[in-house]
Amino acid sequence: MNSNLPKLSFASDYMEGAHPLILQRLLETNMLKTAGYGLDEFSHAARQKIRRACQTPDADIFFLTGGTQTNAIIIGALLKPYQGVIAAASGHISIHEAGAIEAGGHKVLALPHRNGKLSAEAIEAYIRSYWQDENREHMVMPGLVYISQPTEYGTLYSLEELEQISAVCRSSQIPLYLDGARLAYALACPENDATLPDLARLCTAFYIGGTKCGALFGEAAVIPKQNCIPHLFTIIKQQGALLAKGRIAGLQFDTLFSEGLYFRIGHNAIDAARRIRQALLERGYKLAFPSPTNQIFIEFEDSKLKTISSQIELSYWEKSDETHTIMRLATSWATSAEDVEALLSII
Amino acid sequence: MNSNLPKLSFASDYMEGAHPLILQRLLETNMLKTAGYGLDEFSHAARQKIRRACQTPDADIFFLTGGTQTNAIIIGALLKPYQGVIAAASGHISIHEAGAIEAGGHKVLALPHRNGKLSAEAIEAYIRSYWQDENREHMVMPGLVYISQPTEYGTLYSLEELEQISAVCRSSQIPLYLDGARLAYALACPENDATLPDLARLCTAFYIGGTKCGALFGEAAVIPKQNCIPHLFTIIKQQGALLAKGRIAGLQFDTLFSEGLYFRIGHNAIDAARRIRQALLERGYKLAFPSPTNQIFIEFEDSKLKTISSQIELSYWEKSDETHTIMRLATSWATSAEDVEALLSII
Amino acid sequence: MNSNLPKLSFASDYMEGAHPLILQRLLETNMLKTAGYGLDEFSHAARQKIRRACQTPDADIFFLTGGTQTNAIIIGALLKPYQGVIAAASGHISIHEAGAIEAGGHKVLALPHRNGKLSAEAIEAYIRSYWQDENREHMVMPGLVYISQPTEYGTLYSLEELEQISAVCRSSQIPLYLDGARLAYALACPENDATLPDLARLCTAFYIGGTKCGALFGEAAVIPKQNCIPHLFTIIKQQGALLAKGRIAGLQFDTLFSEGLYFRIGHNAIDAARRIRQALLERGYKLAFPSPTNQIFIEFEDSKLKTISSQIELSYWEKSDETHTIMRLATSWATSAEDVEALLSII
Amino acid sequence: MNSNLPKLSFASDYMEGAHPLILQRLLETNMLKTAGYGLDEFSHAARQKIRRACQTPDADIFFLTGGTQTNAIIIGALLKPYQGVIAAASGHISIHEAGAIEAGGHKVLALPHRNGKLSAEAIEAYIRSYWQDENREHMVMPGLVYISQPTEYGTLYSLEELEQISAVCRSSQIPLYLDGARLAYALACPENDATLPDLARLCTAFYIGGTKCGALFGEAAVIPKQNCIPHLFTIIKQQGALLAKGRIAGLQFDTLFSEGLYFRIGHNAIDAARRIRQALLERGYKLAFPSPTNQIFIEFEDSKLKTISSQIELSYWEKSDETHTIMRLATSWATSAEDVEALLSII
Repeated sequence: MNSNLPKLSFASDYMEGAHPLILQRLLETNMLKTAGYGLDEFSHAARQKIRRACQTPDADIFFLTGGTQTNAIIIGALLKPYQGVIAAASGHISIHEAGAIEAGGHKVLALPHRNGKLSAEAIEAYIRSYWQDENREHMVMPGLVYISQPTEYGTLYSLEELEQISAVCRSSQIPLYLDGARLAYALACPENDATLPDLARLCTAFYIGGTKCGALFGEAAVIPKQNCIPHLFTIIKQQGALLAKGRIAGLQFDTLFSEGLYFRIGHNAIDAARRIRQALLERGYKLAFPSPTNQIFIEFEDSKLKTISSQIELSYWEKSDETHTIMRLATSWATSAEDVEALLSII
Repeated sequence: MNSNLPKLSFASDYMEGAHPLILQRLLETNMLKTAGYGLDEFSHAARQKIRRACQTPDADIFFLTGGTQTNAIIIGALLKPYQGVIAAASGHISIHEAGAIEAGGHKVLALPHRNGKLSAEAIEAYIRSYWQDENREHMVMPGLVYISQPTEYGTLYSLEELEQISAVCRSSQIPLYLDGARLAYALACPENDATLPDLARLCTAFYIGGTKCGALFGEAAVIPKQNCIPHLFTIIKQQGALLAKGRIAGLQFDTLFSEGLYFRIGHNAIDAARRIRQALLERGYKLAFPSPTNQIFIEFEDSKLKTISSQIELSYWEKSDETHTIMRLATSWATSAEDVEALLSII
Repeated sequence: MNSNLPKLSFASDYMEGAHPLILQRLLETNMLKTAGYGLDEFSHAARQKIRRACQTPDADIFFLTGGTQTNAIIIGALLKPYQGVIAAASGHISIHEAGAIEAGGHKVLALPHRNGKLSAEAIEAYIRSYWQDENREHMVMPGLVYISQPTEYGTLYSLEELEQISAVCRSSQIPLYLDGARLAYALACPENDATLPDLARLCTAFYIGGTKCGALFGEAAVIPKQNCIPHLFTIIKQQGALLAKGRIAGLQFDTLFSEGLYFRIGHNAIDAARRIRQALLERGYKLAFPSPTNQIFIEFEDSKLKTISSQIELSYWEKSDETHTIMRLATSWATSAEDVEALLSII
Repeated sequence: MNSNLPKLSFASDYMEGAHPLILQRLLETNMLKTAGYGLDEFSHAARQKIRRACQTPDADIFFLTGGTQTNAIIIGALLKPYQGVIAAASGHISIHEAGAIEAGGHKVLALPHRNGKLSAEAIEAYIRSYWQDENREHMVMPGLVYISQPTEYGTLYSLEELEQISAVCRSSQIPLYLDGARLAYALACPENDATLPDLARLCTAFYIGGTKCGALFGEAAVIPKQNCIPHLFTIIKQQGALLAKGRIAGLQFDTLFSEGLYFRIGHNAIDAARRIRQALLERGYKLAFPSPTNQIFIEFEDSKLKTISSQIELSYWEKSDETHTIMRLATSWATSAEDVEALLSII
């Protein structure tokens, strides 16, 4: 199986199945009969645990199957037809979702970024300039701000930065939405100071990523204020995103939010990433971006890269100059100490 | 768990998890690293097995997560913006998909049905009447025919009927699409004479249902003629339907199409349904529709129904008169002989 | 010019240009410079006159170019993504707008009609049945009621009927929208008892038709409650419906609502239609529907029809039996007494 | 009337009604009865004249009401759902159409521009980079190139530049679409060397602007290869853009393309613009962009601008620094020698 791939791979954080505890729960509960569409006990329990973790007892929570789907549905549900969504030009919705936001009728208003991050100032300036433009009624109104934690570049917003962005959104009466595809790897990061309750307090909606953080699939969309998006169940159905056996997603999040599994998963990835990063710096490698999470961006000499690539699978990021290339390494809940040592013995 | 439900339930065919063999495969392969997005070995193997089962060596096959999603994506990809889809007024897309087809920009052209079925004559007459209408350029052009096998009423199209419908479609140059959410229960039915190769020969596209037929989730969209829908991968991504860990769906269909599991699963449900149907007829119950598959539609006296409902969970279908109600019972791959006996001891 | 057409035509009510007074105003004001996009003095004046005629001093009023456009924009702006619009199965949006409502993402929920009309009872029953359906979250929510005055069949809703429908809408918290493509011919009809202020009081939005009622083009969308549809200007721009030289539409409505022209126009058509209808009945013709407005539906023997059609252009409606056909005659603001006499000398 | 505006205005090129010859034709033909929806003799004649002017005897030609509408419909009809349109970041569809392209489901792929123009190199590089990207199936495929002649900045593509862009499009099998909102002012410009037959030869589709070039309203969409966009009539109807009295648009283009009126109109605007530009340069003003057409972009000292603005209406473009502002002056078919002299006596 998979004979094409080198044995050792740090190409991405979704190459294995699920955390073993999830499979164990699926096995144990397999023959129970439950209601469909997320109305089962496992989904109820998962929602309760997430509400507790977020300190939002009334939050609406829906389990969806992937990041693009979650982004398209929540962003589409929060925007009016004449509004667009502000995002970093490097954001996932800007580039790598095949135009899902536009397919839903909305423009992505792409702003310049710094290491994948938007600044509150840039957001505020864009919104102000829209409202000052005499032709604004012929333009797309900014109606939502989209950020990711961590970003596409593995960087983190500090709590202070999130507070500032949230303040801009509130004063502009524009919702804030946070894409947490790799949220476990932000939450487990020592550099991180924004907790789940912080996100729940500062965002109109966000999602807790499962697919890249230990689940077979699944993202938990959290809308802290109850009924802030009316009839979201039907919207999800209409968008083809309602799982008949919702329990399969519910059970996974029930497991991830039992006994701190989601946070432990994150620590494993972060610890592995830190060990790799440190060793690489000691060996004279250059980090392309200062990412503290589970993604490491390293510049390689092309000749050296060729040798390495035959032994380890990495992810291409971009050319930095004629003879150098930036590659991405990703760790995950499944990265073992042996994998890390094997990597470091080669690189 | 599930304390609200009566212990015994025949309410639907997607109340359990997955067939145990599927879970076993998930466990065995869990820690293997594979490529994402359906490019893994399991998905490749599943596609090969389905191609063999359909006798379509070049078919394009995509694994999606649910029926509404599959219908919306394939129908949307086959229609031009100015076209609509012909369907039975009772069809799933006509009623129970929350307007997913319309959300994609297309009208569902609902025709009268007989026990959930469309006739080739009715389809042909509708298409002809469109092309004869002087105002047709102000109307929605019929651009696709949608049928289900089995239908919402559990009925089956005979091979002859499918040949006729397919012939009308071909002569009108209109694609034919078949919704196989419960296809296992058609294929296993003694009354059925339309095989997978028949469907592949007669349809432009169809899907083989997994969610209701033994999988945790998943539907296999089959497009017999290669590249008949160009760039469907990107369309699926854009619609938020591309699984990052595509292997989870691939592995399930690889298992379902190994050693005839998909067909065996069907037989269990059909056998159970036949036993229940026969016993009910012997006891004087009236079948509301002549469905030979895994759904049984029974008329109950309301007073009697009340007693029964406290012991068995059934599905409400519709009122037949002031004092009678039609209820649906569904069997599945998971229905045990004990469940059937328990049901028959109560009813 | 137009040598293909018989000299005499009663085929439709939009075959001429505009009422001469409109052309005269266009000439007089042609070289004035004005602001664009409906911000000019003529549009302001037209809005004021329509507000006065409707007794709605705060109404929002927008001038659009055609009926399909107006229907699609206002209906789309009033519906939520998960909602559909209730309409008569014979309604213009149901059949003759090429799927414009669905192209905007919404299902047309077609109800049976009587001579083109919906009853309050049928609407109420449909809405109630939706809210009682256990599966309603998987279905399209009725979110708007669409009616036409006069209807496609030339029939009229009485004030009492409109009051009843409006009451159903209000008690269901569902907006009511009225398509007034031929509203002049309703307002001028002796059988009509629903005035513009009545419509403004009973409807959430409606439009006053210009294209079929004396204008070169143009429909005035009236939203009696100010800001009931926020940012409609931008929605109109986004939908490609904003006229750069909005004054051209504004000036036409300014003229139509000066000195009662819109109402006078209607009377001419109604008087001509009544004279024709009376003469035909005297000669033994059969009215297909009891339409009191400017459309007359007559059943012809096919052999006789052939002769007549070579001399007068009529509109095909439908076959009533093997040897008879229902044809439509339409009068308009431009129908002259000579035309009527010519018609009656032939028919 | 219009008492708010200074008497003298150079704010835009669509402030008057229509060229007097158009109004005269409307008057002369007003009471003729014609078929609707563009099937009338005037529209036929207009199409023939445009085909002759473009040297494309088989071109499909449709008359629409405005630029945003035309762009959205033609671009939407040429793109597949998974494709986006390449445009200058300054392009009308990128900024000033309220998200109309995105509302139709497509991303605008905005490229850097030079004075409003795209280069063939930049287009080619973008398309090549898409096809070389390993993740391209997760991205929006470039499916159309949009350019304007003249551009938003009043600049012109030379024939050579158009040939180059067209060659890139052809070799990439991507259609080329040209927005000719102000095409008369390009065609009449001495610096211009791209004729209507050139545009017809190099573009998949383009439109000849009427609204800003002498018509009351209207744009002529030209598709040189017959049936290149099948069922465009129905698409136009579905998008609410089909004029019932299509003759009103047809007659205007019939007039504009009789006896070279469209070209004469252009010359008046160009001559006036050249006289103004020359005088301003002589007086020491600075042109912000080297635009040779009917739009003049001048940098003003803010103190001086204040005085001027009380006497002449100009259009705000952007601030160039703390104390200077760039303003736009537009001439048109209606600009008189007196207006020009009045302007030059003030400025």
